[in-house]
Amino acid sequence: MDRALARHLFLVVVASAIALHARALEPPAKEGTMQRVLDDSKPSDWRALDPDNTLYVELANGRVIIELAPAFAPAHVANIRELARRKYWDGLAILRSHDNYVVQWGDPEGGTPKARTLGKARKQVPAEFARDAAGVALRAVPDRDGWAAETGFVQGFAVARDPKEGKAWLTHCYGSVGAGRDNAADSSNGTELYVVIGQSPRHLDRNITLVGRVISGMEILSAIPRGTGALGFFEKPEQRVAIKSIRLLAEVPAREQTSLEVLRTDTATWDALVESRRNRRDDWYLRPAGHINICNLPLPTRIPDAGNNAAKPT
Amino acid sequence: MDRALARHLFLVVVASAIALHARALEPPAKEGTMQRVLDDSKPSDWRALDPDNTLYVELANGRVIIELAPAFAPAHVANIRELARRKYWDGLAILRSHDNYVVQWGDPEGGTPKARTLGKARKQVPAEFARDAAGVALRAVPDRDGWAAETGFVQGFAVARDPKEGKAWLTHCYGSVGAGRDNAADSSNGTELYVVIGQSPRHLDRNITLVGRVISGMEILSAIPRGTGALGFFEKPEQRVAIKSIRLLAEVPAREQTSLEVLRTDTATWDALVESRRNRRDDWYLRPAGHINICNLPLPTRIPDAGNNAAKPT
Repeated sequence: MDRALARHLFLVVVASAIALHARALEPPAKEGTMQRVLDDSKPSDWRALDPDNTLYVELANGRVIIELAPAFAPAHVANIRELARRKYWDGLAILRSHDNYVVQWGDPEGGTPKARTLGKARKQVPAEFARDAAGVALRAVPDRDGWAAETGFVQGFAVARDPKEGKAWLTHCYGSVGAGRDNAADSSNGTELYVVIGQSPRHLDRNITLVGRVISGMEILSAIPRGTGALGFFEKPEQRVAIKSIRLLAEVPAREQTSLEVLRTDTATWDALVESRRNRRDDWYLRPAGHINICNLPLPTRIPDAGNNAAKPT
Repeated sequence: MDRALARHLFLVVVASAIALHARALEPPAKEGTMQRVLDDSKPSDWRALDPDNTLYVELANGRVIIELAPAFAPAHVANIRELARRKYWDGLAILRSHDNYVVQWGDPEGGTPKARTLGKARKQVPAEFARDAAGVALRAVPDRDGWAAETGFVQGFAVARDPKEGKAWLTHCYGSVGAGRDNAADSSNGTELYVVIGQSPRHLDRNITLVGRVISGMEILSAIPRGTGALGFFEKPEQRVAIKSIRLLAEVPAREQTSLEVLRTDTATWDALVESRRNRRDDWYLRPAGHINICNLPLPTRIPDAGNNAAKPT
């Protein structure tokens, strides 16, 4: 193999985004690798997105797709659905891009007399930092987590659980979406949303309401130039990134929908994928780690019509 | 406090970048917060950068400052110094921007007859994935780490240690700088360098040679638009980000140097800073985490002449 090319390929990690025609010419991926797990997956290992729990955020340079988590933040998700139907965010902007932390959008006039009205959406909703653990079918990851007693996945979401307290909650990982709040616990309503773009800020867990996470389009949010004001806020209005619209998938015409499936996290295939990340079997690796963390397990997606060969860990 | 402003300020976390004049008007930061620890720091808690171990990477929109770690990768660092003196990277480019992973630069003609020559620099240097733990004065963090038996800081670098094997190594955190390699362990020489721009890819630890980490300017690297080719490589040469120059600080004229100090990691002040991140005491937080990970402890920097009020956790 060409040496320069080989070195370029040295990190085969999040890496399996290899074009279909190229894959067809290659031998099967090595046993135990992520790519092999995805290649061997069955149609039943994948699921579509729920149109009532999916948001399309339309920006000038592309679409960001968010999956909402009504099982963890029912009041916030209901409010966010109402705000989307009302087209609340259309023409507003990303106001903040804070390096190694979050991007955040909302109404720059929020809290002033010029603030947008909320219509049937609620001005205040209860804090939803954690929920009762009963009824949470956690697919545990096998390794310990420093921040919580137990961690794993629930319907595609990274979740922590404390069996002593009987609570479960969404965790702050890359791509997590939360509802900005004031100092009061119940001061968020979903109008201002943030997305984690850096190292997992797990210290925020149970301090703020997470409402979902980005399924597709993180590369658009994460590359927004950082704001130079305090906390990464843009100092000039023209630096903000305009939001064309935010819509519930249920309200998007079929011809404008993105064809996308996500890997289920309650299957043997998922367990195999976790193991493939705990211990990398690609030839490049010399020492498998024997460990994984929930925030190092992004959810694979695929274009359903393209079959397994288009599946890629994101 | 204005409600919108308050909510904007909701994440006071990496947040203490408050302008000097504003700070002077405010009451002292709350006991136990990061800002208070920095405000109370003494001049001896800070250190300058070693001119022989500091690289300036000059890009069109700013300067990235890297501190090298000769205590962990002496052969690579020696080679990188030689390459910088030779102006090896001047006019080359960032070739890859891989979301939630790395940016990487080098010679796009590497491995071809058009490749730049290395002069007195070595084509091959030994793998430096880990070193003997003897002589490593680890300032341990108090919490367990999933990937390694012990973790902490050594002269500002996040380090892991295995007392059984008697080895210590630099860890992959946001801002870590490493030397790209081929499948062979000893196939890196420092010509191609990558910087971590996402969630800590700790599975790379002990699989590749880390040579240092970014001290300043991460927001420039992390916001580079992602490449759309496999592994985040730019598909067209014009998408690459040109490198004006990479220089050792020792070779930069005094008038062009950035005035910068970094917090020492072998002091009581450092321990207090770690504790302020383990348990956030800012009013916004309702539940201190009681836990921290080495990759959630970026190194504070300050402009020395501006005094403590300019100190900010980065």
